[in-house]
Amino acid sequence: SINGDRLWDSLMEMAKIGKTAKDGVCRLALTDLDRESRDLFIKWCKAESCTIRIDKMGNIFARREGRNPDLPPVVMGSHLDSQPTGGKYDGVYGVLSGLEVIRALNEAKYETEAPLEVVCWTNEEGSRFAPAMVASGVFAKVFDLEYGHSRADVDGKTMGEELKRIGYLGDDEATIDAHPMGAYFEAHIEQGPILEDEGKDIGIVTDAQGQRWYEIKFTGVEAHAGPTPMKTRKDALLGAARVVDLVNRIGLDRSPLACATVGMMQIHPNSRNVIPGEVFFTVDFRHPDDAVLADMDKALREGVEKIASEIGLKTEFEQIFYYAPVPFDKTCVDAVRNAVEIGGYSAREIVSGAGHDACYLAQVTPTAMIFIPCVDGISHNEIEEVHKHWSDAGGQVLLHAVLAKADE
Amino acid sequence: SINGDRLWDSLMEMAKIGKTAKDGVCRLALTDLDRESRDLFIKWCKAESCTIRIDKMGNIFARREGRNPDLPPVVMGSHLDSQPTGGKYDGVYGVLSGLEVIRALNEAKYETEAPLEVVCWTNEEGSRFAPAMVASGVFAKVFDLEYGHSRADVDGKTMGEELKRIGYLGDDEATIDAHPMGAYFEAHIEQGPILEDEGKDIGIVTDAQGQRWYEIKFTGVEAHAGPTPMKTRKDALLGAARVVDLVNRIGLDRSPLACATVGMMQIHPNSRNVIPGEVFFTVDFRHPDDAVLADMDKALREGVEKIASEIGLKTEFEQIFYYAPVPFDKTCVDAVRNAVEIGGYSAREIVSGAGHDACYLAQVTPTAMIFIPCVDGISHNEIEEVHKHWSDAGGQVLLHAVLAKADE
Ligand SMILES: NC(=O)NCCC(=O)O
Ligand SMILES: NC(=O)NCCC(=O)O
Repeated sequence: SINGDRLWDSLMEMAKIGKTAKDGVCRLALTDLDRESRDLFIKWCKAESCTIRIDKMGNIFARREGRNPDLPPVVMGSHLDSQPTGGKYDGVYGVLSGLEVIRALNEAKYETEAPLEVVCWTNEEGSRFAPAMVASGVFAKVFDLEYGHSRADVDGKTMGEELKRIGYLGDDEATIDAHPMGAYFEAHIEQGPILEDEGKDIGIVTDAQGQRWYEIKFTGVEAHAGPTPMKTRKDALLGAARVVDLVNRIGLDRSPLACATVGMMQIHPNSRNVIPGEVFFTVDFRHPDDAVLADMDKALREGVEKIASEIGLKTEFEQIFYYAPVPFDKTCVDAVRNAVEIGGYSAREIVSGAGHDACYLAQVTPTAMIFIPCVDGISHNEIEEVHKHWSDAGGQVLLHAVLAKADE
Repeated sequence: SINGDRLWDSLMEMAKIGKTAKDGVCRLALTDLDRESRDLFIKWCKAESCTIRIDKMGNIFARREGRNPDLPPVVMGSHLDSQPTGGKYDGVYGVLSGLEVIRALNEAKYETEAPLEVVCWTNEEGSRFAPAMVASGVFAKVFDLEYGHSRADVDGKTMGEELKRIGYLGDDEATIDAHPMGAYFEAHIEQGPILEDEGKDIGIVTDAQGQRWYEIKFTGVEAHAGPTPMKTRKDALLGAARVVDLVNRIGLDRSPLACATVGMMQIHPNSRNVIPGEVFFTVDFRHPDDAVLADMDKALREGVEKIASEIGLKTEFEQIFYYAPVPFDKTCVDAVRNAVEIGGYSAREIVSGAGHDACYLAQVTPTAMIFIPCVDGISHNEIEEVHKHWSDAGGQVLLHAVLAKADE
């Protein structure tokens, strides 16, 4: 059995790093706070006699040896970085429940056949550096190292520079080829309302939605808000506003499965009495069916072109991120299902709405995910909350799923 | 006669302070660059033997004595602050053409009956500190000193603090009562396309449009862009986007006289995969007819309420700035008209689309404005441009209008 109290205490301890006024967490990737959380994680892992390996993308692997060191490890994990207004569980739960599995096995002096590892992936959130899950993407050979290191934040600082600055640019090759895995399990909060609504403790994640992310820039003509007649304006914000409405309709028309969001917008020069000359904004599309995702893409491209030509705006349009819907590995999903039965938890199958490092890992190693509910389905928000018995259940299911694979 | 070359040279010299890459000017109110421009203006005025007075709002008055020092001065001027992406002429032209009038009179050893003054008003643009024209507003007793000093920028720095910091918090009372004027003349670029389109060198400004400025904040619920179903979202940016479209329609429906603009928007947390929980934005309405302006106000209030309730957003709504359309003084407008005839310039009557310090001055002293064209009507843009013969013409008309009043 895992120790639910110890897992909970570690979650609360980690949440102090980057704690916000509203009791959330702001711990953007590769900031000093991210370094602090990494340092603490490593300290805890060393206390459990794990060996630590850091790769060229800053991914941290903590290893507990198995009876047969030649077997590829069964890996658990997630990420420690957060959104600007993030919560205490998104990512952290997957890392620390992995650590709790190791603590529990150490306490029970239980030796597994295959080695176990807990991994912390760099920049999962995609908030400071787009796109999301970039370091697990490099590990899964979706991106090359050069791409990973060159991702830049709004100030132009790159991931490579920032990894070096915080002391987490490791020597190890950051690919699955250098470090094959037996299986990968990621425990995570659902970040949506389904499990709580249906009173389930565990989500057996069978698939993850596909995603497409875009960057759009409209350029019009900035001019004085007073003496510039309405009919001669080329208002870049008007164009962006119409795309926000379009994106919402694209999502609603394909509801309930589709999601469509404009989350970020930068207006230039952003002065009350100046018609905006330039607006940069992002679009995030999700759907479990790749064909529908392609159809959403088409609707966006056509709509943006129409809106821009109506107003007379110049358009820069780029899809910066795409992955097809991900089916998880049947044997790993079965291991989760069996672990749920052993624990006697209420559960249902579920499709992940969010992207996770597991989505990239699934392309290169047998992978599954375990969801626990979160209160009101709210995440990417400082008020993100989890009931402790959910946290206990997720840790317990992770333990048994991992043991099934490691001793197989 | 004024010396058009000297006026032009001074404009170019001043434009070096805060020069931008695209040959525009960024000289926000009460920044170090604003201080530099003030210092240069004062240096030039002292070289013309003017006495300098600075009031509690940082307004600078440079005085050339008249034959009868007891007469209230005839005052010329405008402002030296700019938009973030501003041009070389907006405001500066009114200050430096006033200085050129004094230089020309000194050169000609011409003594006026009434004293002359050139004034530089603080924070006309309203970009760093809202609202616009706040210091001339205090001078005209529309606002009190406490209100003026407490206006804050986005970082919370107040005008009072920043005046002190740059050394321009003067001792003089900042009201017309302490410093009566005989008349006030402001030369300015049109900032719209009418004069150039019709091939006129001078606009005889008879009126200025009324304005209403608003601040609106929508609060929804920030949540994850992936697993949060479209139907349960409370997306603050969707609400703001719909208001941008509404504002545009309110303007277009009352075209060609109405103007309606959303110039500024701040999105929170502004992360690609987070549904925006909070959006702050501004609205700027203008119309020469106060009744229509009131009707625009009604349409906005109703529309915002409807949009917010459709999406389920909390609304904070405030009108932060209002003035009714301004008729300028008949005798001063006639003085401009006569000066145009003396110079033999092509001219037309015009209504100002922009707000100017003259709009507040008009409430407390006989006031008129002189417009010169600007290329393509573009202003509040780094590419703002003026042909030199327009600049010459405006300075000449200002000279003769002022002389008519000062020797009356
Ligand atoms: N789990 C999570 O919040 N991932 C961030 C990437 C995404 O937006 O799906
Ligand atoms: N002239 C000018 O740009 N004034 C700023 C205030 C306004 O927006 O009308």
